[in-house]
Amino acid sequence: MHGSQLRVAYQGVPGAYSEAAAGKAYPNCEAIPCDQFEVAFQAVELWIADRAVLPVENSLGGSIHRNYDLLLRHRLHIVGEVQLPVHHCLLALPGTRMEYLSRVISHPQALAQCEHTLTKLCPQAAREAVDDTAGAAEYIAANNLRDTAAIASARAAELYGLQVLADGIQDDSSNVTRFVMLAREPIIPRTDRPFKTSIVFAHDKGTSVLFKVLSAFAFRNISLTKIESRPHRNRPIRLVDDANVGTAKHFEYMFYIDFEASLAEVRAQNALAEVQEFTSFLRVLGSYPMDMTPWCPSRGDQ
Amino acid sequence: MHGSQLRVAYQGVPGAYSEAAAGKAYPNCEAIPCDQFEVAFQAVELWIADRAVLPVENSLGGSIHRNYDLLLRHRLHIVGEVQLPVHHCLLALPGTRMEYLSRVISHPQALAQCEHTLTKLCPQAAREAVDDTAGAAEYIAANNLRDTAAIASARAAELYGLQVLADGIQDDSSNVTRFVMLAREPIIPRTDRPFKTSIVFAHDKGTSVLFKVLSAFAFRNISLTKIESRPHRNRPIRLVDDANVGTAKHFEYMFYIDFEASLAEVRAQNALAEVQEFTSFLRVLGSYPMDMTPWCPSRGDQ
Repeated sequence: MHGSQLRVAYQGVPGAYSEAAAGKAYPNCEAIPCDQFEVAFQAVELWIADRAVLPVENSLGGSIHRNYDLLLRHRLHIVGEVQLPVHHCLLALPGTRMEYLSRVISHPQALAQCEHTLTKLCPQAAREAVDDTAGAAEYIAANNLRDTAAIASARAAELYGLQVLADGIQDDSSNVTRFVMLAREPIIPRTDRPFKTSIVFAHDKGTSVLFKVLSAFAFRNISLTKIESRPHRNRPIRLVDDANVGTAKHFEYMFYIDFEASLAEVRAQNALAEVQEFTSFLRVLGSYPMDMTPWCPSRGDQ
Repeated sequence: MHGSQLRVAYQGVPGAYSEAAAGKAYPNCEAIPCDQFEVAFQAVELWIADRAVLPVENSLGGSIHRNYDLLLRHRLHIVGEVQLPVHHCLLALPGTRMEYLSRVISHPQALAQCEHTLTKLCPQAAREAVDDTAGAAEYIAANNLRDTAAIASARAAELYGLQVLADGIQDDSSNVTRFVMLAREPIIPRTDRPFKTSIVFAHDKGTSVLFKVLSAFAFRNISLTKIESRPHRNRPIRLVDDANVGTAKHFEYMFYIDFEASLAEVRAQNALAEVQEFTSFLRVLGSYPMDMTPWCPSRGDQ
């Protein structure tokens, strides 16, 4: 690093939610936009960036399997996590009035997430899908469109000189995306604050493997915060592990587990040793400080 | 039913992958397009349709949590499943040549799924995101666009009079979406062919509940084909169960499990009784014949 700022790669354009996640994870970082997720991995691997920030699951959309695939195909380590409430705003050029909007543009997921609210706010406006949320805001500004609004972040409004017509317009207030931070080197796990550890494992056959794996955690009172199976019937997956670099392997199932313990703890080390006994593939994606900030729904519904 | 055809609601426009899933599930059905997933549920509840076909997971995108929410908010039953390989084609007006394309339009997910192949086939063409795949094909035909191609199904080419410029252009050949079929009444589970049962359960606290639940299946040699946890920290979920209609409840976690057994089997009934003992909410989404057709990757990579 020549400068003093940490360089953090993210997928998207300035004003994207991933950029906000990068800023939450690393305040005052230099956020580097990348047009693809894989480019963000490469940026870190090639020392163009120091960290990457990658969305891995959303409370409505579920796990992003594609990004778990990238984690397995690359050698980066998870060094942290950050949860970001998705807070959508309706943006337009200053002076635009809600009742004269003829269309609303955004990413299709954002349009879907605001469907009911939009119907109340501006029933006359057509919806049009574009590539991304921040890109929609940029497009309105660049083309000086006075009849069009975008769904994007408040930050996108600032960046592209737009006005926030309505704030927090998502139908479901508890829409949260979980991002992980990636680095070339793992961090040294500690025990002086809550840590989480993410693993991926696979086995070829047998119904009771998962049961045995869970027993390794249950008997040691280690809580799981995520468990997910992923069928891999016809599909060999190219894995990078410590023994085999880039070998294509075939597994019937892969499992993702996050557990609430630091790898510095003996019980976690013992649990992992047991997991390795029962499985044919095991990779630790990282052991990292938990994001303890409470989820803040943008509109209370409880 | 006045006619002889089964009416099957799906989300999307004609030529959509959901329409293909409806046709695979119910050959010769009358497929009814709906603009939203929830409209497909309502169509069945209001007797406008006999069945709905709903995507619940994709091999790259993961589980579609939003659709699991709809299953919990409505009272329909899963009566079957169908797995559909996502087979993308590049479509254009007859006579259009690949090297003169100036843009490719489709749903952002479809564009992402064909990124590498597109870069090889037509590096000069810009990508533009639109609402849906079949809608992109329709748009090209309706506007007679000679410089634009769409990524959509081969069926969309037929419907909108386009030509298939390239077939099977997805980067990952094993992109499969799993759909479930929904009806007002459950089917009577049988034991003369392989059945699968889908359940959702929740508990308030305790690290070992999942372990206990899995033991109920493991000790009875019942295989799980899916297990997934879903955090619900701040979010009460409006549930419809047999005891409480539409009560909002708060759970720390919900779990989705699919297991390979019919509810007509005593071991499955006993396992469920045990699950109920350990959990505070349990709902059987359905017990239905397994889709036994092998996954057929559209391009062999093994």
